[in-house]
Amino acid sequence: MASYTFFTNPMSRGQIARWALHEVGADYEQVIVEYGAPKTAALLAANGLGKLPTLVHHTSDGDYPIAETSAICAYLAETESGGALAPTARERAAYYRWMFFAAGPLEQAITARSMGFEPNERQRVSVGFGCYDLVVDTLAAHLRGGDYVCGDRFTMADVYVGSHVLWGTMFKTLPELPEFVAYGERLTQRTSYVEAKAIDHALIAAAQAAAQEAKV
Amino acid sequence: MASYTFFTNPMSRGQIARWALHEVGADYEQVIVEYGAPKTAALLAANGLGKLPTLVHHTSDGDYPIAETSAICAYLAETESGGALAPTARERAAYYRWMFFAAGPLEQAITARSMGFEPNERQRVSVGFGCYDLVVDTLAAHLRGGDYVCGDRFTMADVYVGSHVLWGTMFKTLPELPEFVAYGERLTQRTSYVEAKAIDHALIAAAQAAAQEAKV
Repeated sequence: MASYTFFTNPMSRGQIARWALHEVGADYEQVIVEYGAPKTAALLAANGLGKLPTLVHHTSDGDYPIAETSAICAYLAETESGGALAPTARERAAYYRWMFFAAGPLEQAITARSMGFEPNERQRVSVGFGCYDLVVDTLAAHLRGGDYVCGDRFTMADVYVGSHVLWGTMFKTLPELPEFVAYGERLTQRTSYVEAKAIDHALIAAAQAAAQEAKV
Repeated sequence: MASYTFFTNPMSRGQIARWALHEVGADYEQVIVEYGAPKTAALLAANGLGKLPTLVHHTSDGDYPIAETSAICAYLAETESGGALAPTARERAAYYRWMFFAAGPLEQAITARSMGFEPNERQRVSVGFGCYDLVVDTLAAHLRGGDYVCGDRFTMADVYVGSHVLWGTMFKTLPELPEFVAYGERLTQRTSYVEAKAIDHALIAAAQAAAQEAKV
Protein backbone atom coordinates (compact mmCIF):
# COMPACT_ATOMS: atom_id res chain seq x y z
CA MET A 1 0.00 0.00 0.00
CA ALA A 2 1.24 3.49 -0.84
CA SER A 3 1.91 5.89 2.06
CA TYR A 4 -0.74 8.33 0.85
CA THR A 5 -4.15 8.02 -0.77
CA PHE A 6 -4.76 11.11 -2.89
CA PHE A 7 -8.37 11.92 -3.82
CA THR A 8 -8.28 14.37 -6.68
CA ASN A 9 -9.66 15.55 -9.97
CA PRO A 10 -7.25 16.96 -12.55
CA MET A 11 -9.42 20.09 -12.97
CA SER A 12 -9.32 20.93 -9.23
CA ARG A 13 -6.91 22.48 -6.72
CA GLY A 14 -5.64 18.89 -6.60
CA GLN A 15 -3.08 20.09 -9.16
CA ILE A 16 -1.42 22.07 -6.37
CA ALA A 17 -1.38 19.10 -4.00
CA ARG A 18 0.07 16.85 -6.70
CA TRP A 19 2.92 19.31 -7.26
CA ALA A 20 3.53 19.28 -3.48
CA LEU A 21 3.53 15.46 -3.43
CA HIS A 22 6.14 15.39 -6.20
CA GLU A 23 8.31 18.07 -4.54
CA VAL A 24 8.76 15.86 -1.48
CA GLY A 25 8.86 12.60 -3.45
CA ALA A 26 5.86 11.16 -1.61
CA ASP A 27 4.69 7.64 -2.36
CA TYR A 28 1.01 8.09 -3.29
CA GLU A 29 -1.86 6.33 -4.96
CA GLN A 30 -4.38 8.53 -6.72
CA VAL A 31 -8.15 8.13 -6.68
CA ILE A 32 -9.76 10.22 -9.41
CA VAL A 33 -13.13 11.60 -8.33
CA GLU A 34 -15.35 12.64 -11.23
CA TYR A 35 -17.33 15.86 -10.92
CA GLY A 36 -21.02 15.20 -10.70
CA ALA A 37 -20.54 11.58 -9.61
CA PRO A 38 -21.74 10.65 -6.10
CA LYS A 39 -19.01 11.09 -3.47
CA THR A 40 -17.67 7.75 -2.33
CA ALA A 41 -17.80 6.63 1.30
CA ALA A 42 -13.99 6.60 1.43
CA LEU A 43 -13.77 10.26 0.45
CA LEU A 44 -16.57 11.35 2.78
CA ALA A 45 -14.99 9.44 5.67
CA ALA A 46 -11.77 11.38 5.13
CA ASN A 47 -13.44 14.73 4.49
CA GLY A 48 -17.07 15.40 5.36
CA LEU A 49 -17.08 18.33 2.92
CA GLY A 50 -16.21 15.88 0.13
CA LYS A 51 -13.87 18.51 -1.30
CA LEU A 52 -10.92 17.84 -3.55
CA PRO A 53 -8.10 17.40 -3.01
CA THR A 54 -8.20 15.27 0.13
CA LEU A 55 -5.17 13.30 1.27
CA VAL A 56 -4.95 10.38 3.70
CA HIS A 57 -1.59 9.54 5.24
CA HIS A 58 -1.35 5.85 6.17
CA THR A 59 1.07 5.39 9.08
CA SER A 60 1.84 2.74 11.66
CA ASP A 61 -0.12 4.90 14.14
CA GLY A 62 -3.19 4.96 11.94
CA ASP A 63 -4.63 7.00 9.10
CA TYR A 64 -4.47 10.78 9.09
CA PRO A 65 -6.87 12.60 6.76
CA ILE A 66 -5.80 16.06 5.59
CA ALA A 67 -7.98 18.52 3.72
CA GLU A 68 -7.50 22.09 2.50
CA THR A 69 -4.82 22.33 -0.18
CA SER A 70 -2.79 24.73 1.98
CA ALA A 71 -2.82 22.26 4.89
CA ILE A 72 -1.76 19.42 2.59
CA CYS A 73 1.24 21.51 1.50
CA ALA A 74 2.19 22.43 5.09
CA TYR A 75 1.76 18.84 6.27
CA LEU A 76 3.90 17.34 3.50
CA ALA A 77 6.64 19.94 4.00
CA GLU A 78 7.13 18.97 7.63
CA THR A 79 6.46 15.26 7.34
CA GLU A 80 8.40 14.25 4.22
CA SER A 81 12.01 14.67 2.99
CA GLY A 82 13.23 15.35 6.51
CA GLY A 83 11.38 18.65 6.53
CA ALA A 84 13.60 20.04 3.75
CA LEU A 85 10.79 22.23 2.34
CA ALA A 86 9.53 23.38 5.75
CA PRO A 87 10.83 26.75 6.94
CA THR A 88 13.92 27.34 9.07
CA ALA A 89 13.49 29.63 12.11
CA ARG A 90 14.55 32.60 9.95
CA GLU A 91 12.10 31.70 7.18
CA ARG A 92 9.18 30.91 9.47
CA ALA A 93 7.61 34.38 9.66
CA ALA A 94 7.45 34.83 5.89
CA TYR A 95 6.42 31.22 5.33
CA TYR A 96 3.34 31.31 7.55
CA ARG A 97 2.47 34.87 6.69
CA TRP A 98 2.23 34.24 2.96
CA MET A 99 0.75 30.76 3.21
CA PHE A 100 -2.14 32.15 5.26
CA PHE A 101 -2.28 35.29 3.12
CA ALA A 102 -2.84 33.15 0.03
CA ALA A 103 -5.36 30.87 1.79
CA GLY A 104 -7.26 33.83 3.23
CA PRO A 105 -7.19 37.38 1.81
CA LEU A 106 -5.84 36.50 -1.65
CA GLU A 107 -8.29 33.65 -2.23
CA GLN A 108 -11.17 35.72 -0.82
CA ALA A 109 -10.34 38.80 -2.88
CA ILE A 110 -10.12 36.78 -6.11
CA THR A 111 -13.27 34.78 -5.32
CA ALA A 112 -15.28 37.84 -4.37
CA ARG A 113 -14.28 39.65 -7.56
CA SER A 114 -14.94 36.67 -9.81
CA MET A 115 -18.41 36.28 -8.23
CA GLY A 116 -19.13 39.95 -8.80
CA PHE A 117 -18.98 40.95 -5.15
CA GLU A 118 -16.92 43.99 -4.13
CA PRO A 119 -17.01 45.16 -0.51
CA ASN A 120 -18.00 48.80 -0.03
CA GLU A 121 -16.00 51.26 2.10
CA ARG A 122 -17.73 50.27 5.32
CA GLN A 123 -17.46 46.54 4.63
CA ARG A 124 -13.74 46.80 3.88
CA VAL A 125 -13.03 47.52 7.52
CA SER A 126 -14.56 44.26 8.67
CA VAL A 127 -13.79 41.82 5.85
CA GLY A 128 -10.42 40.15 6.16
CA PHE A 129 -9.22 40.94 2.67
CA GLY A 130 -9.81 44.68 2.44
CA CYS A 131 -9.74 45.51 -1.24
CA TYR A 132 -8.52 43.53 -4.23
CA ASP A 133 -5.97 46.10 -5.46
CA LEU A 134 -4.30 46.38 -2.09
CA VAL A 135 -4.06 42.60 -1.75
CA VAL A 136 -2.46 42.31 -5.19
CA ASP A 137 -0.03 45.18 -4.54
CA THR A 138 1.01 43.75 -1.19
CA LEU A 139 1.89 40.38 -2.69
CA ALA A 140 3.74 41.97 -5.63
CA ALA A 141 5.75 44.18 -3.26
CA HIS A 142 6.81 41.12 -1.27
CA LEU A 143 7.89 39.23 -4.39
CA ARG A 144 10.03 42.19 -5.50
CA GLY A 145 12.12 41.53 -2.37
CA GLY A 146 13.34 38.03 -3.21
CA ASP A 147 13.21 35.17 -5.66
CA TYR A 148 10.94 33.10 -3.41
CA VAL A 149 8.40 33.62 -0.64
CA CYS A 150 11.03 33.06 2.06
CA GLY A 151 13.85 34.86 0.23
CA ASP A 152 16.57 33.00 -1.67
CA ARG A 153 15.36 29.47 -1.11
CA PHE A 154 12.41 27.57 -2.58
CA THR A 155 10.10 26.24 0.17
CA MET A 156 6.66 24.65 0.19
CA ALA A 157 5.17 28.13 0.51
CA ASP A 158 6.15 28.62 -3.14
CA VAL A 159 4.08 25.63 -4.21
CA TYR A 160 1.00 27.10 -2.60
CA VAL A 161 1.48 30.85 -3.10
CA GLY A 162 3.09 30.23 -6.48
CA SER A 163 0.12 28.18 -7.67
CA HIS A 164 -2.16 31.12 -6.91
CA VAL A 165 0.13 33.41 -8.90
CA LEU A 166 0.43 31.00 -11.85
CA TRP A 167 -3.31 30.28 -11.91
CA GLY A 168 -4.23 33.93 -11.47
CA THR A 169 -2.02 35.25 -14.26
CA MET A 170 -3.14 32.42 -16.58
CA PHE A 171 -6.87 32.95 -16.00
CA LYS A 172 -6.56 36.75 -15.66
CA THR A 173 -7.86 36.84 -12.11
CA LEU A 174 -4.52 38.48 -11.26
CA PRO A 175 -2.85 41.17 -13.36
CA GLU A 176 0.25 40.19 -15.35
CA LEU A 177 2.64 42.22 -13.20
CA PRO A 178 6.35 41.71 -13.98
CA GLU A 179 6.89 40.41 -10.41
CA PHE A 180 4.26 37.69 -10.95
CA VAL A 181 5.55 36.73 -14.39
CA ALA A 182 9.19 36.45 -13.29
CA TYR A 183 8.23 34.44 -10.20
CA GLY A 184 6.05 32.13 -12.29
CA GLU A 185 8.90 31.49 -14.71
CA ARG A 186 11.19 30.41 -11.88
CA LEU A 187 8.56 27.98 -10.63
CA THR A 188 7.55 26.35 -13.90
CA GLN A 189 11.16 25.28 -14.52
CA ARG A 190 11.11 22.92 -11.56
CA THR A 191 11.24 19.22 -12.39
CA SER A 192 8.49 18.36 -9.90
CA TYR A 193 6.21 21.02 -11.33
CA VAL A 194 6.70 19.69 -14.86
CA GLU A 195 6.15 16.06 -13.74
CA ALA A 196 2.98 16.85 -11.79
CA LYS A 197 1.43 19.01 -14.51
CA ALA A 198 2.16 16.36 -17.14
CA ILE A 199 0.07 13.86 -15.18
CA ASP A 200 -2.87 16.22 -14.71
CA HIS A 201 -2.77 17.47 -18.28
CA ALA A 202 -2.76 13.88 -19.58
CA LEU A 203 -5.76 13.07 -17.36
CA ILE A 204 -7.63 16.12 -18.67
CA ALA A 205 -6.83 15.22 -22.28
CA ALA A 206 -8.00 11.63 -21.74
CA ALA A 207 -11.25 12.81 -20.15
CA GLN A 208 -11.88 15.20 -23.06
CA ALA A 209 -11.17 12.45 -25.61
CA ALA A 210 -13.59 10.12 -23.79
CA ALA A 211 -16.25 12.85 -23.76
CA GLN A 212 -15.80 13.40 -27.51
CA GLU A 213 -16.10 9.68 -28.14
CA ALA A 214 -19.29 9.48 -26.07
CA LYS A 215 -20.82 12.23 -28.25
CA VAL A 216 -19.98 10.40 -31.50
CA MET B 1 13.19 46.40 24.28
CA ALA B 2 10.48 43.74 24.32
CA SER B 3 10.90 40.71 22.01
CA TYR B 4 7.73 41.58 20.11
CA THR B 5 6.02 44.78 18.98
CA PHE B 6 2.29 44.12 18.76
CA PHE B 7 0.22 46.53 16.62
CA THR B 8 -3.39 46.08 17.59
CA ASN B 9 -6.76 47.58 18.32
CA PRO B 10 -8.88 46.02 21.06
CA MET B 11 -11.89 45.82 18.70
CA SER B 12 -9.97 43.83 16.06
CA ARG B 13 -8.79 40.26 15.48
CA GLY B 14 -5.87 41.47 17.61
CA GLN B 15 -7.81 39.91 20.49
CA ILE B 16 -6.94 36.50 19.06
CA ALA B 17 -3.25 37.37 18.70
CA ARG B 18 -3.12 38.71 22.26
CA TRP B 19 -4.54 35.45 23.59
CA ALA B 20 -1.83 33.62 21.59
CA LEU B 21 0.89 35.89 22.99
CA HIS B 22 -0.28 35.13 26.54
CA GLU B 23 -0.55 31.38 25.91
CA VAL B 24 3.18 31.24 25.09
CA GLY B 25 4.18 33.87 27.66
CA ALA B 26 5.70 36.15 25.02
CA ASP B 27 7.38 39.39 26.04
CA TYR B 28 5.55 42.04 24.00
CA GLU B 29 4.98 45.76 23.82
CA GLN B 30 1.63 46.86 22.42
CA VAL B 31 1.03 49.74 20.02
CA ILE B 32 -2.65 50.67 19.90
CA VAL B 33 -3.73 51.78 16.44
CA GLU B 34 -6.95 53.82 16.42
CA TYR B 35 -9.49 53.16 13.68
CA GLY B 36 -9.78 56.09 11.33
CA ALA B 37 -6.39 57.50 12.31
CA PRO B 38 -3.68 57.55 9.60
CA LYS B 39 -1.57 54.38 9.58
CA THR B 40 1.88 55.03 11.02
CA ALA B 41 5.06 54.42 9.02
CA ALA B 42 6.10 51.71 11.51
CA LEU B 43 2.90 49.72 10.90
CA LEU B 44 3.03 50.14 7.12
CA ALA B 45 6.69 49.10 7.05
CA ALA B 46 5.74 45.87 8.83
CA ASN B 47 2.55 45.28 6.85
CA GLY B 48 1.77 47.08 3.61
CA LEU B 49 -1.90 46.24 4.07
CA GLY B 50 -1.85 48.16 7.36
CA LYS B 51 -4.08 45.46 8.84
CA LEU B 52 -4.40 44.66 12.52
CA PRO B 53 -3.03 42.74 14.23
CA THR B 54 0.54 42.89 12.95
CA LEU B 55 3.42 41.53 14.98
CA VAL B 56 7.15 42.21 14.68
CA HIS B 57 9.60 39.78 16.25
CA HIS B 58 12.87 41.49 17.21
CA THR B 59 15.72 38.95 17.14
CA SER B 60 19.51 39.03 17.00
CA ASP B 61 19.15 38.16 13.28
CA GLY B 62 16.89 41.13 12.59
CA ASP B 63 13.21 41.99 12.70
CA TYR B 64 10.59 39.59 11.38
CA PRO B 65 7.17 41.08 10.58
CA ILE B 66 4.21 38.68 10.76
CA ALA B 67 0.70 39.43 9.56
CA GLU B 68 -2.50 37.39 9.31
CA THR B 69 -3.81 36.39 12.72
CA SER B 70 -3.56 32.71 11.81
CA ALA B 71 0.10 33.11 10.85
CA ILE B 72 0.83 34.94 14.10
CA CYS B 73 -0.63 31.99 16.01
CA ALA B 74 1.34 29.41 14.01
CA TYR B 75 4.55 31.43 14.32
CA LEU B 76 4.29 31.88 18.09
CA ALA B 77 3.44 28.20 18.62
CA GLU B 78 6.68 27.07 16.98
CA THR B 79 8.93 29.88 18.13
CA GLU B 80 8.03 30.30 21.81
CA SER B 81 7.78 27.99 24.82
CA GLY B 82 9.97 25.40 23.13
CA GLY B 83 7.19 24.70 20.66
CA ALA B 84 4.90 23.34 23.38
CA LEU B 85 1.74 24.52 21.59
CA ALA B 86 2.91 23.43 18.12
CA PRO B 87 1.65 20.03 16.96
CA THR B 88 3.40 16.70 17.42
CA ALA B 89 3.73 14.48 14.34
CA ARG B 90 0.44 12.78 15.30
CA GLU B 91 -1.37 16.08 15.79
CA ARG B 92 0.00 17.74 12.66
CA ALA B 93 -2.69 16.68 10.17
CA ALA B 94 -5.56 17.96 12.33
CA TYR B 95 -3.64 21.06 13.35
CA TYR B 96 -2.97 22.33 9.85
CA ARG B 97 -6.27 21.12 8.47
CA TRP B 98 -8.38 23.07 10.94
CA MET B 99 -6.12 26.14 11.11
CA PHE B 100 -6.44 26.54 7.34
CA PHE B 101 -10.10 25.54 7.43
CA ALA B 102 -10.80 28.40 9.84
CA ALA B 103 -8.63 30.88 7.89
CA GLY B 104 -10.22 29.90 4.58
CA PRO B 105 -13.64 28.25 4.19
CA LEU B 106 -15.00 29.14 7.64
CA GLU B 107 -13.99 32.79 7.46
CA GLN B 108 -15.19 33.04 3.86
CA ALA B 109 -18.53 31.37 4.55
CA ILE B 110 -19.22 33.65 7.53
CA THR B 111 -18.05 36.78 5.68
CA ALA B 112 -20.07 35.97 2.56
CA ARG B 113 -23.22 35.38 4.60
CA SER B 114 -22.78 38.51 6.70
CA MET B 115 -22.29 40.58 3.52
CA GLY B 116 -25.43 39.11 2.01
CA PHE B 117 -23.64 37.00 -0.61
CA GLU B 118 -24.57 33.34 -1.04
CA PRO B 119 -22.99 31.31 -3.85
CA ASN B 120 -25.48 29.65 -6.21
CA GLU B 121 -25.31 25.96 -7.18
CA ARG B 122 -22.88 26.55 -10.01
CA GLN B 123 -20.64 28.86 -7.98
CA ARG B 124 -20.45 26.38 -5.10
CA VAL B 125 -18.35 24.06 -7.23
CA SER B 126 -15.64 26.66 -7.73
CA VAL B 127 -15.63 28.66 -4.49
CA GLY B 128 -13.45 27.20 -1.80
CA PHE B 129 -16.07 27.20 0.94
CA GLY B 130 -18.99 25.46 -0.74
CA CYS B 131 -22.02 26.29 1.36
CA TYR B 132 -22.32 27.75 4.85
CA ASP B 133 -24.33 24.89 6.37
CA LEU B 134 -21.87 22.26 5.22
CA VAL B 135 -18.93 24.25 6.59
CA VAL B 136 -20.64 24.59 9.97
CA ASP B 137 -21.64 20.91 10.09
CA THR B 138 -18.13 19.77 9.18
CA LEU B 139 -16.55 21.75 12.00
CA ALA B 140 -19.18 20.60 14.51
CA ALA B 141 -18.65 16.98 13.50
CA HIS B 142 -14.93 17.32 14.11
CA LEU B 143 -15.42 18.87 17.55
CA ARG B 144 -17.71 16.00 18.55
CA GLY B 145 -14.67 13.75 18.20
CA GLY B 146 -12.46 15.32 20.88
CA ASP B 147 -12.11 18.08 23.45
CA TYR B 148 -9.71 20.05 21.28
CA VAL B 149 -8.85 20.47 17.60
CA CYS B 150 -6.01 17.94 17.84
CA GLY B 151 -7.80 15.56 20.23
CA ASP B 152 -7.10 15.49 23.98
CA ARG B 153 -4.55 18.25 24.12
CA PHE B 154 -4.90 22.03 23.81
CA THR B 155 -2.70 23.43 21.01
CA MET B 156 -2.40 26.79 19.30
CA ALA B 157 -5.00 25.62 16.77
CA ASP B 158 -7.54 26.01 19.59
CA VAL B 159 -6.66 29.67 20.02
CA TYR B 160 -7.36 30.35 16.37
CA VAL B 161 -10.21 27.94 15.60
CA GLY B 162 -11.65 28.47 19.08
CA SER B 163 -11.73 32.23 18.63
CA HIS B 164 -13.84 31.77 15.52
CA VAL B 165 -16.22 29.54 17.46
CA LEU B 166 -16.42 31.90 20.45
CA TRP B 167 -16.85 34.97 18.26
CA GLY B 168 -19.36 33.26 15.99
CA THR B 169 -21.61 31.97 18.75
CA MET B 170 -21.45 35.33 20.56
CA PHE B 171 -22.34 37.42 17.50
CA LYS B 172 -24.71 34.79 16.05
CA THR B 173 -22.72 34.31 12.88
CA LEU B 174 -22.49 30.64 13.93
CA PRO B 175 -25.38 28.63 15.38
CA GLU B 176 -25.27 27.80 19.09
CA LEU B 177 -24.69 24.09 18.54
CA PRO B 178 -23.94 22.08 21.71
CA GLU B 179 -20.51 21.14 20.28
CA PHE B 180 -19.60 24.81 19.90
CA VAL B 181 -20.91 25.81 23.32
CA ALA B 182 -19.09 23.00 25.16
CA TYR B 183 -15.85 23.71 23.31
CA GLY B 184 -16.16 27.42 24.06
CA GLU B 185 -16.62 26.73 27.76
CA ARG B 186 -13.41 24.70 27.87
CA LEU B 187 -11.49 27.53 26.24
CA THR B 188 -12.78 30.46 28.26
CA GLN B 189 -11.59 28.81 31.48
CA ARG B 190 -7.95 29.15 30.45
CA THR B 191 -5.86 31.61 32.46
CA SER B 192 -4.26 33.12 29.36
CA TYR B 193 -7.66 33.65 27.76
CA VAL B 194 -8.95 35.44 30.85
CA GLU B 195 -5.79 37.60 31.12
CA ALA B 196 -5.81 38.60 27.47
CA LYS B 197 -9.53 39.41 27.35
CA ALA B 198 -9.24 41.51 30.53
CA ILE B 199 -6.67 43.74 28.81
CA ASP B 200 -8.74 44.20 25.65
CA HIS B 201 -11.98 44.73 27.53
CA ALA B 202 -10.32 47.38 29.73
CA LEU B 203 -9.00 49.14 26.62
CA ILE B 204 -12.47 49.10 25.05
CA ALA B 205 -14.05 50.46 28.24
CA ALA B 206 -11.44 53.24 28.47
CA ALA B 207 -12.00 54.21 24.82
CA GLN B 208 -15.78 54.31 25.35
CA ALA B 209 -15.38 56.46 28.49
CA ALA B 210 -13.10 58.85 26.59
CA ALA B 211 -15.62 59.08 23.74
CA GLN B 212 -18.40 59.85 26.23
CA GLU B 213 -16.29 62.55 27.84
CA ALA B 214 -15.53 64.12 24.46
CA LYS B 215 -19.29 64.37 23.77
CA VAL B 216 -19.99 66.13 27.11
